[in-house]
Amino acid sequence: EERKYKELREALTNHMHPIDLAILLEEFDQKHMVIIFRLLPKDDAAETFTNLNSDMREHLINALTDSELEEVMEEMYVDDTVDVLEELPANVVDRLLMATDVEKRAQINQLLQYPEDSAGSIMNIDYIAFRKEMTVSEAILKIRQVGLNRETIYTCYVTEKRELIGTVDLKDLLTSGESRTIEEVMDTNVMYATTTDDKEEVAQTIHKYGMMALPIVDHENRMVGLVTVDDAMQVMEDETTEDISIMAGLSPNEESYFGTSVWQHVKNRLPWLIFLMLSATVTQMIMGHYEMALAVMPQLAGFIPMLMGTGGNCGSQSSTLVIRGLAVGEIKFNDLFRVIFKEIRVALIISGILSVINGLRILLMKQGDPLISLTIGLTMACTIVIAKVVGCSLPLIAKKVGLDPAIMATPLISTLVDISTVTVYFSIVSVVFSL
Amino acid sequence: EERKYKELREALTNHMHPIDLAILLEEFDQKHMVIIFRLLPKDDAAETFTNLNSDMREHLINALTDSELEEVMEEMYVDDTVDVLEELPANVVDRLLMATDVEKRAQINQLLQYPEDSAGSIMNIDYIAFRKEMTVSEAILKIRQVGLNRETIYTCYVTEKRELIGTVDLKDLLTSGESRTIEEVMDTNVMYATTTDDKEEVAQTIHKYGMMALPIVDHENRMVGLVTVDDAMQVMEDETTEDISIMAGLSPNEESYFGTSVWQHVKNRLPWLIFLMLSATVTQMIMGHYEMALAVMPQLAGFIPMLMGTGGNCGSQSSTLVIRGLAVGEIKFNDLFRVIFKEIRVALIISGILSVINGLRILLMKQGDPLISLTIGLTMACTIVIAKVVGCSLPLIAKKVGLDPAIMATPLISTLVDISTVTVYFSIVSVVFSL
Repeated sequence: EERKYKELREALTNHMHPIDLAILLEEFDQKHMVIIFRLLPKDDAAETFTNLNSDMREHLINALTDSELEEVMEEMYVDDTVDVLEELPANVVDRLLMATDVEKRAQINQLLQYPEDSAGSIMNIDYIAFRKEMTVSEAILKIRQVGLNRETIYTCYVTEKRELIGTVDLKDLLTSGESRTIEEVMDTNVMYATTTDDKEEVAQTIHKYGMMALPIVDHENRMVGLVTVDDAMQVMEDETTEDISIMAGLSPNEESYFGTSVWQHVKNRLPWLIFLMLSATVTQMIMGHYEMALAVMPQLAGFIPMLMGTGGNCGSQSSTLVIRGLAVGEIKFNDLFRVIFKEIRVALIISGILSVINGLRILLMKQGDPLISLTIGLTMACTIVIAKVVGCSLPLIAKKVGLDPAIMATPLISTLVDISTVTVYFSIVSVVFSL
Repeated sequence: EERKYKELREALTNHMHPIDLAILLEEFDQKHMVIIFRLLPKDDAAETFTNLNSDMREHLINALTDSELEEVMEEMYVDDTVDVLEELPANVVDRLLMATDVEKRAQINQLLQYPEDSAGSIMNIDYIAFRKEMTVSEAILKIRQVGLNRETIYTCYVTEKRELIGTVDLKDLLTSGESRTIEEVMDTNVMYATTTDDKEEVAQTIHKYGMMALPIVDHENRMVGLVTVDDAMQVMEDETTEDISIMAGLSPNEESYFGTSVWQHVKNRLPWLIFLMLSATVTQMIMGHYEMALAVMPQLAGFIPMLMGTGGNCGSQSSTLVIRGLAVGEIKFNDLFRVIFKEIRVALIISGILSVINGLRILLMKQGDPLISLTIGLTMACTIVIAKVVGCSLPLIAKKVGLDPAIMATPLISTLVDISTVTVYFSIVSVVFSL
């Protein structure tokens, strides 16, 4: 308790970063949080508000007076406001929108209309635009007067009838003669994206070219905003978390681990577990056909977990490499046969090595005679090749038909490999031992 | 062939981005690649060289004359040079170092001494430093004269006896009176990292605070360089790829999927496969004890894949959530008991639901009598709880003892869960059916 207040006093005197202020505020109970929030300097208050979790924000909105709320809304960037609005219940949204001036409200409504995951939904609409007739000194003067946030002034845009025709780096402005025109110093080789482009592609472009911001145009080629490098980083982190979740058979979740209730965790995990559990029935039915074989040679059952485990691991290695390759843009659907050819060669070598190691182990541990050792080796070799081919091709096919490749990861691959493993195993067993 | 040359002609006339030039060059054979490389404008050549893959770079170094190589080296940033050097064989490194002037060579040697994965190993040593007595107009003049790459001029640093005492944004310089001193306009609340800090933490700091660059100081607090936001993005992407690889039982690999030879793929995948295959022997030995039970009731074997599969999926859901939570800094070791408590509650609800669904399925499909149905339900419930507790705690314990938490992912968790599943299953079976 005392520590928190000490931190707080230091924070308020030493101008703590709004992101740290938000983390600190979340440690207080709601009543004290509101009191402290009121003590913050006006410009810090808006940024701190943006960084609070949604529960805290909702409580604050209810606790602040209309005029206090208006002050916060005035300082907030439009794209941050939209992010905040999207997480709030409808009645709170109304209160927030009433605290916003008419012009900003129109911009917010515009942004809310872009599809989820589109460049439009994450773009920033504050940027500096020049006309090509302006001189360098007029342009610098404009930057001085407008004063937006940092990322958005270091690259400026040149528009003509709102159409994007060039970019100018602030660095180039500073190093050019003051009487030259923007047209002379601008770079007309502009990279841009469209409002409806996927935000993940926009993030990849920014990352690939080491850009600080990518301009966004509408379908009439008019500039409407830009996505900055820190937005791109957030998109990359979120998309990766989403991919990793889906790869583990979890419904993706934007809340934090502790911020998610037990029931929500159950809801996120249950669908895949039920589906996979029921799919395992197929494996069971196949094994049911060979009950007589197991009654005669019960030791055959003991090899099944190892065969399935190895197959599953081989398959998930391949699917993971392909899913990640697709995510970072290194593998494309057209590479399907190249990938399969590579995986088959890898699988043949691995299956040779593993079969020999395992065969020797069985003989050394006296778990079976040479015939059993051979049967297991053969099954393992077939399983590994099947697992790797299935594992590498399903994510590519998923991508092609518009599904998320991450679905084709370990859980599903393992279940499919399980089915093929028992099929291969008992087919070979019935031939070898005439069961 | 014709398409490539058409693209090339366009590239050379329209000033293609060096990153795209590198991608295009890699499509040509080595002989033509060298010819085209010689046609590039000098400043593009260096950046294109940086972005080529290591085979191409090695070939170029061997093909270019000493003076051509010197020209390329002159234009390259020191941190890029170090990245290039680290991937080249020793004899080629010598040739490159000979083409570098004495001062740069000293800087390169300094950078090569920082430990792998440290902030020092990825930092940029070109930045703009002011003295606090300088006026704003002197500072702007200095920026105009020095002209480094973009990210590094938009935040400038104030040093005194090389010690870092403040930062100034270019924006603040532009909006301040020209005769004010740097001391008056600088921000003394400086965030920084040390050369030996982990590069992943540095990337997380840059991301968290939306910074464009983080200054790096040595152990005497003297500023020695900075890490920019695009380096941070690269670190985040590489670390994620590494985590995802390890989570799938793959040795991490910096090369691309196609850039890795079949043999290297085998080497990256084999160690874990062998280890996990041999670990599965434990499961087999436990099942060996119950061969008599299986001979009497062979239908019991059919349930094993489903029990193991469900357990493995439950465990990997939990371990994945914790591994990702650790990676994005949301979960810490101190949360161990909070995490376990949450996972136990989730596991109890999930095990209740899955046991009931599965019990009904067994009865409906006539795969067993109510006693078998009950046995399977009980085993499943125990397995799920064990899987979730093991899955969530192992990554945290790994982190605590200094291992990579990503090791404690699906492959290892599944193997451990397999062992516990058969133990629980046959213990319950022997009691219920007195086998």
